[in-house]
Amino acid sequence: MKAYVLEKKGQPPRWSDFELPAPKAGEHTVNIKAAALNHRDVFITQGLYPGIKAPSILGADGAGLAGQREVVINPNVGWGSSLAHQEPSYRVLGMPDHGTMSEQIILPEDRLEDKPAHLSWEEAAALPLGGLTAYRALFTRGGCAAGQKVLISGIGGGVALFALQFALACGAEAYVTSGSPEKLEKARAMGAVGGASYKEDDWHKKLAGMAGGFDLIIDSAGGPGFAFFPKIANFGARIVTYGGTRGKVPDFSPQMIFWKQITIHGTSMGSDQEFRDMLAFVGKHQIRPVIDRVYPMHRANEAFQRMAEGAQFGKIVLSL
Amino acid sequence: MKAYVLEKKGQPPRWSDFELPAPKAGEHTVNIKAAALNHRDVFITQGLYPGIKAPSILGADGAGLAGQREVVINPNVGWGSSLAHQEPSYRVLGMPDHGTMSEQIILPEDRLEDKPAHLSWEEAAALPLGGLTAYRALFTRGGCAAGQKVLISGIGGGVALFALQFALACGAEAYVTSGSPEKLEKARAMGAVGGASYKEDDWHKKLAGMAGGFDLIIDSAGGPGFAFFPKIANFGARIVTYGGTRGKVPDFSPQMIFWKQITIHGTSMGSDQEFRDMLAFVGKHQIRPVIDRVYPMHRANEAFQRMAEGAQFGKIVLSL
Repeated sequence: MKAYVLEKKGQPPRWSDFELPAPKAGEHTVNIKAAALNHRDVFITQGLYPGIKAPSILGADGAGLAGQREVVINPNVGWGSSLAHQEPSYRVLGMPDHGTMSEQIILPEDRLEDKPAHLSWEEAAALPLGGLTAYRALFTRGGCAAGQKVLISGIGGGVALFALQFALACGAEAYVTSGSPEKLEKARAMGAVGGASYKEDDWHKKLAGMAGGFDLIIDSAGGPGFAFFPKIANFGARIVTYGGTRGKVPDFSPQMIFWKQITIHGTSMGSDQEFRDMLAFVGKHQIRPVIDRVYPMHRANEAFQRMAEGAQFGKIVLSL
Repeated sequence: MKAYVLEKKGQPPRWSDFELPAPKAGEHTVNIKAAALNHRDVFITQGLYPGIKAPSILGADGAGLAGQREVVINPNVGWGSSLAHQEPSYRVLGMPDHGTMSEQIILPEDRLEDKPAHLSWEEAAALPLGGLTAYRALFTRGGCAAGQKVLISGIGGGVALFALQFALACGAEAYVTSGSPEKLEKARAMGAVGGASYKEDDWHKKLAGMAGGFDLIIDSAGGPGFAFFPKIANFGARIVTYGGTRGKVPDFSPQMIFWKQITIHGTSMGSDQEFRDMLAFVGKHQIRPVIDRVYPMHRANEAFQRMAEGAQFGKIVLSL
């Protein structure tokens, strides 16, 4: 069998032969049809992820055939029973557990869900981790509902695009930020009411001018920009953070937070129940993940290179 | 009638003659028995509060007689109908609305609640704004429950002490911080399991060593110390902020917030329903506000001086 294997920490993974252990009782072999990339995979190849173990097959996102059953894979390993948070031992599929960037994967029955019928293999593979993260951020944590004004930062990333699609599907009024005018324009074409480039001065004032104020802000950047969110948030607003790619917030002021009764929700991935709820939501609203590019899986290195450059708009998919 | 009047912005208030307008239909005259100080009052006398109007009678907290009825005063002016947040036009009683540091106050019927029977006039006057703020912070926002580990920073302040008393009454395990060893000792005598001085290096490690980790942290300081809270918070923990006396947080990191699924709740005062719930809770658990000192109301300037110095442990009360 061939797989995209991290053979040694600090070396680029390679498409190479790999022997999976035989399935145990209750486990299924899934013949992978497509897999997709997440930032987590890039961080692992760059050695920037805690507890890297090699050799490991990368990849959290995948879809394929378990016998004749068309399945999408739940990327959670040991979330636990609480909706509020994962167990501290929780892991995402793919390093150290052998992942989806592989001709085959062996998984317990309860990690397999029916592939939404309206999706292609590539679309189904694009959905799991990003869709789950966006669903929990937007609904469980953020309380998104019809008529609310929602700001989604860094549009173009997988989670941000799912958040935009889900927010629109539930009847919210969505706004976006990006550093790229092209991405802002694409988001408008998808249904966003407006957007602003965070590279401009006064981007937050521009957004507040369009929307009046936001009920919900979804962010994965952190950094200096985060400090402006409370200023453009409504009373009782929620700010949901699922990442910190721009690092620490240098000037975080409690004043607006307590006076406006704002809540900041940290969120990461989601529970197994939320994964099933997300699939049902995607089925009900016939949502199709935005795909940036599809690469043959043996050319995964090129796909990783594209993701590292940050130019993508949507998910980067590997096809078999 | 005499009252503690802010006659001009920037000048110390004075105990002086003042003519209240006549009560309108549906309004009651309350003969004040005692009033209490809040930081808000001090900020007003220092000119550090937005929208200062003079002449105004200060004071949010009070208890007295409406005819023969013993009442405690609801300090909310126009919270509105939402539990999630106040209306933007919301005000706290006392400047610009004539407040409680007065021989008399005129209020609508719905601002008056029965004085909890087990409390003295001074204790009842100490309760309203601090008790309301602590109740919302701890329960509505913080979700405090029996068995949880709760950290309350800056013990000695009115709200922090109510939060400690309420947390203990509901069966939580409470820990505290203070800059003063005496205050830490007094909190232990009240039932806190442990405490640490935030003036020591590694205060957060000391607390984590005692408690293992916190489910709920209640803070009104902000500043550099706030950045340590996520480190000593459990998965799924809540951090509630009701003030920012130490200013901005210089290094706020999203990492722990999203990975541990932490929620930061901003909170300020509380709704009319929460005020009634707080009074019922205080009655049920026979809680007595901690009183630092009682001054005759005509010596209010000395009381304000004591509060400005920050040496108090409990509420500073003015008696008539």
